[in-house]
Amino acid sequence: MMYSLEAGGKRIRPALVMTAAEAIRGSSEARAAARPVACAVEYVHTYSLIHDDLPAMDDDDYRRGKLTNHKVFGEAMAILAGDALLTHAFSLIPQSVRQGVPLEAALAIVEDLSLLAGASGMVGGQVADMQGEQGMTTVKELEYIHLHKTSDLVIFSVKSGARIGGATPFQLEQLTLYARNIGLAFQIQDDILDLIGDESKLGKKTNSDVNQQKVTYPYLIGMQESKALVDRLTEEAKSAVSNAGLSNPSLLLQIADYLVQRDH
Amino acid sequence: MMYSLEAGGKRIRPALVMTAAEAIRGSSEARAAARPVACAVEYVHTYSLIHDDLPAMDDDDYRRGKLTNHKVFGEAMAILAGDALLTHAFSLIPQSVRQGVPLEAALAIVEDLSLLAGASGMVGGQVADMQGEQGMTTVKELEYIHLHKTSDLVIFSVKSGARIGGATPFQLEQLTLYARNIGLAFQIQDDILDLIGDESKLGKKTNSDVNQQKVTYPYLIGMQESKALVDRLTEEAKSAVSNAGLSNPSLLLQIADYLVQRDH
Repeated sequence: MMYSLEAGGKRIRPALVMTAAEAIRGSSEARAAARPVACAVEYVHTYSLIHDDLPAMDDDDYRRGKLTNHKVFGEAMAILAGDALLTHAFSLIPQSVRQGVPLEAALAIVEDLSLLAGASGMVGGQVADMQGEQGMTTVKELEYIHLHKTSDLVIFSVKSGARIGGATPFQLEQLTLYARNIGLAFQIQDDILDLIGDESKLGKKTNSDVNQQKVTYPYLIGMQESKALVDRLTEEAKSAVSNAGLSNPSLLLQIADYLVQRDH
Repeated sequence: MMYSLEAGGKRIRPALVMTAAEAIRGSSEARAAARPVACAVEYVHTYSLIHDDLPAMDDDDYRRGKLTNHKVFGEAMAILAGDALLTHAFSLIPQSVRQGVPLEAALAIVEDLSLLAGASGMVGGQVADMQGEQGMTTVKELEYIHLHKTSDLVIFSVKSGARIGGATPFQLEQLTLYARNIGLAFQIQDDILDLIGDESKLGKKTNSDVNQQKVTYPYLIGMQESKALVDRLTEEAKSAVSNAGLSNPSLLLQIADYLVQRDH
């Protein structure tokens, strides 16, 4: 569990939980109250990477420049480390009540995590991804895969932070739209970087999608159109943030830009 | 997910959730309020069986008289079905609030499930089980394996039902002792049935522990001593129920007896 948690990564999801909380409430105490849920989402993300890398799934040897969990500890321990990370994530949400998060918000966050990370969310996206084949998948199906495999956990991150910050229903709706769009843009950017990125910066081999015959946006709609789509989604995400009437929107806007400009 | 949920089984854990709720509150409405959490514990138990049966773990072809999940759907789908069952279980707990379970109780149940099913509970027991070897494991270590691998989810079942029923701290303590002991007795009985049970009733091959060189109670302390221990644990469990001063203890007492007398 610790090996994979400490393997690095951009920590974008926990940053979004804390930033969304602060953006709504406009105070740094909201960031502190959001910390247990921020950890929870990184636990869930890390479990999903460990299981995705397994030989029965993507069969990857490297992740973030280090050997994958099962290459170091064996398949059985990697499966169990993933199971334990997922399970432990949920114990962090009740802990946030001791940081001042209301009971109703904490229970709504439990339900959000369960629905957005499960069969109707992230796991459902992974299943669709396993079943997709080059030449057999439409843009609509690929959007389904990316929206669930990636956006849903990003939506959870932003929405849980917004709940902790005390968002109105309208703010929740706008921030959900922001998260959906940056999640989709993030995944398309991943597809692009897999083709034209720098292996040493990415910490993994490029062209893995091509070698595994994965369907990607550049494969389906071309590189230029994919880059234009990333830009369009990012602009729409930023508009949603501007519409929401937040105390402190600047960091959410910066994260949206960072995700387009990143090279790893 | 449905294939394994509908594969049958004794449904002891959900029965314990509903029975504990009714035993405390003394009304059948408590049984209804406990139903979502009863489903949740069966989801978690089912996920643990799917992952335990994987080639990288116990590599079992049959479970409850049917092919195991990965034999039907492949390893990748079996891993994901387990992940989705575990994740979905947590969404059922907030649902119980709509059945009248207080917010505080629901959040305590989320925390209990996370701790008792995770690294410090069921998954921890499974890890210890994978690492145990015949000739290298003491009775104390085997007790650790059984207490975490089996008792912890039984403790969750009884404790969550008791919380839903509105148990006092003393009642929670006595019912936790009951659950610990019937869980341990249940697992020792499993060890015994693996040696002397009827394959057609068990729905799986006997002597699998011997063939996999698993450490068991009969192996360590002998058959007669193992049977005596099951009886002693059952009596202690029943005493704890009697001490708890319940409105309606009879079903909990019957379940304890059933677990000793069962032949599958």
